[in-house]
Formats: sequence, structure tokens, C-alpha cells
Amino acid sequence: MTHSPSVTPTADSVSPRAREDKESIPLWRRDLVDCLSYLGQRIETALDALLPPVEEHPNAAGPYGVCPARLARAARYSTLGGGKLLRPKLTLLAAEAVGGDDAIENALAAACAVELVHAYSLVHDDLPAMDDDDLRRGRPTTHVEFDEATAILAGDGLLTLAFGAVVAGVRPAERAAACVGILAEAAGFRGMVGGQMADLQAESIPREQGSVELLEAIHLRKTGALLRASLTMGAAASGANAELTTALDEYGRALGLAFQIQDDLLDATGDPAKTGKKVGKDLELGKWTYPAFLGVEESRRRARSLVDQAVTALRPLGDRSARLVGLARTLLERDR
Amino acid sequence: MTHSPSVTPTADSVSPRAREDKESIPLWRRDLVDCLSYLGQRIETALDALLPPVEEHPNAAGPYGVCPARLARAARYSTLGGGKLLRPKLTLLAAEAVGGDDAIENALAAACAVELVHAYSLVHDDLPAMDDDDLRRGRPTTHVEFDEATAILAGDGLLTLAFGAVVAGVRPAERAAACVGILAEAAGFRGMVGGQMADLQAESIPREQGSVELLEAIHLRKTGALLRASLTMGAAASGANAELTTALDEYGRALGLAFQIQDDLLDATGDPAKTGKKVGKDLELGKWTYPAFLGVEESRRRARSLVDQAVTALRPLGDRSARLVGLARTLLERDR
Repeated sequence: MTHSPSVTPTADSVSPRAREDKESIPLWRRDLVDCLSYLGQRIETALDALLPPVEEHPNAAGPYGVCPARLARAARYSTLGGGKLLRPKLTLLAAEAVGGDDAIENALAAACAVELVHAYSLVHDDLPAMDDDDLRRGRPTTHVEFDEATAILAGDGLLTLAFGAVVAGVRPAERAAACVGILAEAAGFRGMVGGQMADLQAESIPREQGSVELLEAIHLRKTGALLRASLTMGAAASGANAELTTALDEYGRALGLAFQIQDDLLDATGDPAKTGKKVGKDLELGKWTYPAFLGVEESRRRARSLVDQAVTALRPLGDRSARLVGLARTLLERDR
Repeated sequence: MTHSPSVTPTADSVSPRAREDKESIPLWRRDLVDCLSYLGQRIETALDALLPPVEEHPNAAGPYGVCPARLARAARYSTLGGGKLLRPKLTLLAAEAVGGDDAIENALAAACAVELVHAYSLVHDDLPAMDDDDLRRGRPTTHVEFDEATAILAGDGLLTLAFGAVVAGVRPAERAAACVGILAEAAGFRGMVGGQMADLQAESIPREQGSVELLEAIHLRKTGALLRASLTMGAAASGANAELTTALDEYGRALGLAFQIQDDLLDATGDPAKTGKKVGKDLELGKWTYPAFLGVEESRRRARSLVDQAVTALRPLGDRSARLVGLARTLLERDR
């Protein structure tokens, strides 16, 4: 399971010292699965510390007061619900590719910010006035588990927290400000929010009048922008130069589109026990998807070609991009 | 109308040179009305430039694409709708009190950010799942004029833009990062968003079980936090020391509560032609308000006392706080 030179003990038998040794293994000496699992743990711990606690003593409150318990529960439910944490892992891998192992600590807040924005966008997109989804990751969506008002406010709070996390965690201030700028552009009117709007508008256009080009223009904003920002924020947190930043941005662009095609393919052909969604739901709803426009085989071919493009884009990073290359390759094998 | 030594020409007769002269009059040489009107114009021009244009050529788009026209229209409708611009004016006055006239330019983006957050909060608070209001500033609310999905997304975009504006406009990066941190704390789970949640929860508690202390704890988050942040962001943009920042924060805290009491008084006794709202709507809905708990006269007394507190807090700023003192005094006279 691991390329680490030390014997990997089971969780039960790990002494504090051994655990410390295990945690201090640099990323480049871990295999991809171990590396991603380690990063996932770091991100979950950091997210847990950032989110408001459910019960807070007034003395521990911020300058204005405490977060109401129900709102804190909804925020935690929406964020810590067992997501894949793909985006924040990309942030940390990009930071490490540019700045080495030491760069991960400094990029952790930027990684959390990306996941908080992703979580908020799911909560708001699932609302009755938007995509009206009841189920997410196999659990009731936030507005079903709580209520609409709580879901709207939880989303608003998560988005706000994302920016606060960046300036509280990324050093020096120039890099924090750069990350805030990248995130605001990617999540804003010309990025994710604009893409969701375009997606909702496309619903009233019959599929026969759509095209794969229009579909791609939506995805580049709705999901692609944040995925690209995940990488360029990691680069910015590590002080990357323009060449490496562009390389990571191009990798993110191709990976984002490949990821979206794979999402559409999973909807059309995946195992509902793994995806947590009904098969063919998109097709049934007349949604614009890659398989609907191109067929399953051509969609698969396009996803493979995009993964190749993503890998090629990483050339300026040389050996340091090995984990990002590995991640892109495994994308085509994912089943949820 | 003005203390400026030059004769003030009418708008029609202003030559470009005279206009430039008029614009270059320092704030401290203008009377309060002229000063606030000048700041209001600066803020509106800056907001207009920050918001996405309704029609955008793809070549002028951001890295991910353009903002859909309908969403840009909704964002502009929600922000440029003739608000009082109290909060951003406070930001600029605080920046000027600390750093002089030259500090206004650098704080302009922070001022816009505060107004964008205020505008987004109104759009989301007015939604059917929240306060369910149809009318705002005498016009249909955003979800009535457009639709719910557009209103949710416009709010999300405005909040996101606020943080992007700060890092794009405030220099150096240390001050921009400080402003982002203040805004995120004030607008977030323990600030404005938490206050709106607490306010919604209070609706299900009969007024007899409420108290003015609980009401105040809600207001300190729901409206007070952003008002205080308006001032401390202005201070941060000008590099204020801890003493002046605390003075401005205390001024903001007292002013915010006084402002809220005045709001409640206007609802109970104001002129609907000026407030744009039905008289006694809050009372009818069984809402927690200062007049409901304290009566009209005691509420007025408390507002006066808070304005005195606000003015006293400004002492460390000396003469430089004259315009902030003037603004606090006029608060008690406002009728809309």
C-alpha cells in the first residue's frame, strides 16, 4: 500500500512516535493512494477547525457573538459530508509541486477555502429554486435535512468563511491577496456563479438546439473555473512564477473538462450504489450532457484525450508533477 | 450649501476645469451635506465599474467567460437601486479621519465591498424562504423583479465580488488582507449571517418571552457587525494603529444600535411615502422591536444616548473626526 521505507502499522497499534514518523514522510516518498489519503486527512482536520463549533461558550465567541447552533450544524453537515476533496487535494499537490513538502502547510488554508466554496455551491445549487435536488452524496441535501432558510444562510456563511480562511492562513499577505483574487474571479459572476446561471438558462433550451460547444462554455465556468483556481491558488500560495502557474492552469482546464465528461458518463452508465444517484437521471430530464451530444464512446475518447492534454501541460514542472500526473490518470477509473 | 471658497456653479454650467476644481476640494473644507454627496458619487461610480456589464464582448471576458446578461442586470438592480450608501460612506470617512484626503482613493474598493455585502444580504434576506419581502426601497425585490434562482445567484456573486474588489483595489497587500479578514468575520457565521439566523429563530418565540437584551444580541450581529466593519475596514485601509481602530469600532457599535432603533421607530411612526414601507408592519407581524419592548419615548432616549456614546468614542481622533460626529448627529433626524 505504501512505498514508505518504514513498516506501516495498523491504526490500532500506532504509537504517538510512530504516528509522528508516519506523518513526517514527505509526499514524494508516498504512493499516490497513500499521498491522497494523507492530504485528505490534513484537509478534514483543517476544515473541522475552521468551521464554527456547534456549541460555543460566549466567552469564546468572535467580536460580534456566537454562531447559532443550528447554523453551525448545517455548515458542518454541508462540508464534512464525505466529499472526495478532489479540489483541495489539487491545491496541496500544486503547492507541493512548486514549493516542495514545506509548502503544504502554507497552502492548507487555500485548500480549505476551495472546498468551502465547492460545498456552498452544492448547497445553493440543490435548493428548490435551483436544481431542486433532495439527495447528495447519498444523504438528504442541506435544505431537506434542515430547511431552506438555513441552507441559504449556511451557504452564505461557507462562502464568506472561505475568504476569511485564506487571509488568516496563507503567508505572506501578497500571496494571500493573490489567492483571494483568484478565488473571487473563479467563483464569481464570470466564473462559477455565471456558469450556474447559464446552466439554468440552458434548461429551457431544447437539447436539439444545444451543442457540445455551448455545453463546454457552461462547464468552463460552472465547474472548470473553481477546479482551475484550485491549482492556481496552490501555485500562488507557493509563490510560483508565471510559467508554472500557466502550466497548472492548463492542466486544471483539461482535467476539469475530463472530470465533467466522466460525471456525465457515470450518470449515464454508472453504478447507482456507488454514485448515489439514479442511472440516466440527466437524460430523463433532457439535460445537456456529453453522452447526449456525442454518444458514450466518443465521450470516453474525448475524456482520454483531455487527460493526455492535462499531462502534457505539466511538462514545465518536470518530475515534480508526478503526483498530479498520477491523479489525472486515475480520474478515468473513478466510479463515484 | 458649501463652505468651499469658490462659487459653486450649477451642474449645467460646469466646465471640465471647474468640475476638476470642485472635485479636488478636500473633504474637510466641505460641509457635511456636500461631503456625503461627493462621497456618494465616488462610491456609485466605483460600484458601476466593479459590477459585470450587461452586455460584454467575449474578448473582454474574464479567464472563464462572460457573466450572463440577466445575472448582470439582477446584480446591478440589487446594488445600484438608490440605497443610502451609509456603510461605504462610513468607510471613506474613517479612512480620511485616519489618513487624510489621500486615503480615500485607497479605501474606495473597501467601501464598495461593504456596500456589495450589504446589497447581497438584502437580496437573500428578502427571499420567500427568509423574510419574504416583495418591496425594497419602493421597488420590487430582486426575486420578484427577476426570479428566485437569479436572486440567489446575484447575491452569491455580489458577496464574492466584494472580496475580489478589496484585493484588487486596496494597497499594500497587508492592508487588503486585513480588510478581507475584517469583512469575512463581520459578514460570516458569528456576524451578519449568524444574526440573520438568530433573527429568523426569534420569530418563532412569542414577543412576551423576548427581551431587549436578546434583541440587541441579534442586532449586534445582523446589522451591527457590518456597520462596525465599515469603519474598521476604512481604518485598516489607511493603516490605523490599534487606538484609532478601537475608537472607530466603538463608534460603529454605538451608531449601529442607534441606527437600528431609528429603523424600528421609523417603522412604528414614520411616513410611508418616505420610508417606502407600510407603517406598523413590524408590530403587526409580532416582530421584536425596540418600541415594542421599550415604548416609543424610551426608544428615542436610548438612541440619543447611543449617539452620545458614539461621539465620545471618537475623542482619540480629535478634530479629524468632525465629519463622523456630524453624521452621527444627523442620524436622529433621518426620515427614511
